Amino acid sequence: MRSADVIFMEFQQGDRISIEKDGVEYEGMVMPSNTHHIVLKMSNGYNAGISAENAKITVLQKASNVQDAHANDTSQLNKTTKGKLPKVSILSTGGTIASKIDYRTGAVTARFSADDILKAIPELTEIADFSGRAIYNILSENMRAEYWEELARAVAEEIRDGADGIIIAHGTDTMMYTAAALAFMVRTPVPIVFVGSQRSADRPSSDNATNAICAAKVAVSDIAEVCVVMHGSESDDICDIHRATKVRKMHTSRRDAFRSINSEPIGFVDYLTGDIHTHLEYNNRNSQELDLLEGFEPKCALIKFTPGASPDIISYYLDAGYKGIVIEGTGLGHVSSEWVPMIARATSMNVPVVITSQCLHGRICDRVYDTGRDMLRAGAIEGEDMLPEVALVKLMWALKRSDDHAAVKKLMVQNIAFEINERSPE
Amino acid sequence: MRSADVIFMEFQQGDRISIEKDGVEYEGMVMPSNTHHIVLKMSNGYNAGISAENAKITVLQKASNVQDAHANDTSQLNKTTKGKLPKVSILSTGGTIASKIDYRTGAVTARFSADDILKAIPELTEIADFSGRAIYNILSENMRAEYWEELARAVAEEIRDGADGIIIAHGTDTMMYTAAALAFMVRTPVPIVFVGSQRSADRPSSDNATNAICAAKVAVSDIAEVCVVMHGSESDDICDIHRATKVRKMHTSRRDAFRSINSEPIGFVDYLTGDIHTHLEYNNRNSQELDLLEGFEPKCALIKFTPGASPDIISYYLDAGYKGIVIEGTGLGHVSSEWVPMIARATSMNVPVVITSQCLHGRICDRVYDTGRDMLRAGAIEGEDMLPEVALVKLMWALKRSDDHAAVKKLMVQNIAFEINERSPE
Repeated sequence: MRSADVIFMEFQQGDRISIEKDGVEYEGMVMPSNTHHIVLKMSNGYNAGISAENAKITVLQKASNVQDAHANDTSQLNKTTKGKLPKVSILSTGGTIASKIDYRTGAVTARFSADDILKAIPELTEIADFSGRAIYNILSENMRAEYWEELARAVAEEIRDGADGIIIAHGTDTMMYTAAALAFMVRTPVPIVFVGSQRSADRPSSDNATNAICAAKVAVSDIAEVCVVMHGSESDDICDIHRATKVRKMHTSRRDAFRSINSEPIGFVDYLTGDIHTHLEYNNRNSQELDLLEGFEPKCALIKFTPGASPDIISYYLDAGYKGIVIEGTGLGHVSSEWVPMIARATSMNVPVVITSQCLHGRICDRVYDTGRDMLRAGAIEGEDMLPEVALVKLMWALKRSDDHAAVKKLMVQNIAFEINERSPE
Repeated sequence: MRSADVIFMEFQQGDRISIEKDGVEYEGMVMPSNTHHIVLKMSNGYNAGISAENAKITVLQKASNVQDAHANDTSQLNKTTKGKLPKVSILSTGGTIASKIDYRTGAVTARFSADDILKAIPELTEIADFSGRAIYNILSENMRAEYWEELARAVAEEIRDGADGIIIAHGTDTMMYTAAALAFMVRTPVPIVFVGSQRSADRPSSDNATNAICAAKVAVSDIAEVCVVMHGSESDDICDIHRATKVRKMHTSRRDAFRSINSEPIGFVDYLTGDIHTHLEYNNRNSQELDLLEGFEPKCALIKFTPGASPDIISYYLDAGYKGIVIEGTGLGHVSSEWVPMIARATSMNVPVVITSQCLHGRICDRVYDTGRDMLRAGAIEGEDMLPEVALVKLMWALKRSDDHAAVKKLMVQNIAFEINERSPE
């Protein structure tokens, strides 16, 4: 019998153990191993492979006990004593907040259901009476328009069934797109709160508990809007409440990656006190009736202009039957002069071309410089102060409201879901 | 004789006048008018059309005198008394800092030459002994790789001819791309300073004087790098000195639109004292020999991934003979699973695919999630902490250094011009 086999009789995968060897102590969770080494997931998030020979091993916590404890917590969720609390539905779509380590590859995969969130964060049960269901379980980069619609239908169903608030667990990568899609689709009488996690639950720096608890606070609040609730700083002190159409993931890994652009956040949740402080006016609970305006035109493209880029890309999309184009231009909303005839071609084919800026901050104005004025003459639609990504989602949505160019243009320059702020004097 | 004709005998286009009428006083510069009204460019930047009837008009300053005064200033530029000052070459490429109102359309066009900047900002002549020439005069959205090369050759020529510093007047829209291009092309013993203006000189809020003066300070400094010097705040107090490969225009209109991303600025110029304060280590003057590494592959594309976007776009570029692709993915650098086979196809055709993030801030890491790992297996190159736009310029440049995939990959993940920071522990 190899030493590793002996070891595996003493502890098992998922146990928290310490290994003392050659004067060094390692502590962590036992991961699967294909070698004679014990693989530990350590508290710094890294894995260590340690030979068991001459090592002193202590089991600190059994995996099964941890799971049992969680199961006991959640078993109380549906007890009638919770009936006085507001009803909140957690809809799970996948993502880090609902993910765990895939023992097969060692990478993080989307596996957990909404129920797992409640198991992991028992504090939630003091805020609301939760029910949860997994709508689907995909990595957020695989999100697409039909999933947005499916999610919106599920949200509407939960609201009709009496939910006082909705929490949507979503991967952070494409959360801004899905949140914007819901903002255009759903007129809501209750809060619809997107929440995610930039660090998975197995890491000590995980933001999933803070974010989920703050999201729950917003879900039972008076803010009846589609919003994104995520860490507002590098500490665990506040979570910002972002408007769905004004938020953008602005960092690949930081916990406070989400930022409101061209708008303040609606407000923030003080994690320690649980209080909500607001910066902006918002739609109050029950101030509007539930309404669902489904439908997205999938054949819409977002093109980022770069110097010298060939305008043939517009032709490509037109020839492929695309129905709408958003251009991420430079500065106030420019492309090279060569692109102008292609914008005119699109317009003549009844394909709206909406201009946004790769600056992200600020407003489009194509009336200042010659090129911009030529673009407007060619039919380009100024995307106001919309984020390029939001303009894309909105155009996909607008093209299902009407196929008339003028009607779509009117929708695109009109504020529907807080995506456009009124022009303010400089 | 119409009243307007009488008026035009008393003053002319460009004069600064005041008009008193019905108890209101208007003051501004006379613009061309096609009607009987006098059109004034007022100090708030707006135009007013005022009927001359019953108006009292006073000429405050004649246009011709202003120009003469400037002409006198600049006539001293090349006097031998300036010989003791460092020699700085201003190369003009167009853009707002070198623009004026086009009386034909009322819009701002690129018209002025480098010499006009000196005329307009006589303070510059105290900082250095300037010579200037217009390399070309185009709007920055029409910039392209061959202009980058032409500019680099002109810069090298000026340095060989004894310039102690270079100022490049450039439109702000695509300044970041051109600055990055020069950073990859030119190893410089002297400062190469890009400067522009977010507000044209005819507006009271113009930033062109502050920016140009701060740029001149950097041009005579010890910072022998390609950098961008632009307003660092909404006031006229400081200009930031950004690294060419770490800077991005982050607002469509604000004067402090330029921001360093994934890096501090090198430092800043205190406009009032003229002092330079630095945050970072930098290449000192004369620490390296002049070298020019020209050549950009124009057939490179920057593709921004959005949810549900068809991977056919990669096929389109491959079939059109493109040699390199930069993808602006989500989060840590992801695309949908559907895109992975297309990345593999590109790799098999010897076309490098470099992954960057639409988050802009942070670093690519495709080793955490399944999709990322699949992308790496398909040959995707992690763009580290490079801005997507900088990765594009670098890839265009790298493809002219070698046509071997492995060699290009090596260049792409290696720091060449401060575009990649070392990984730091979280």
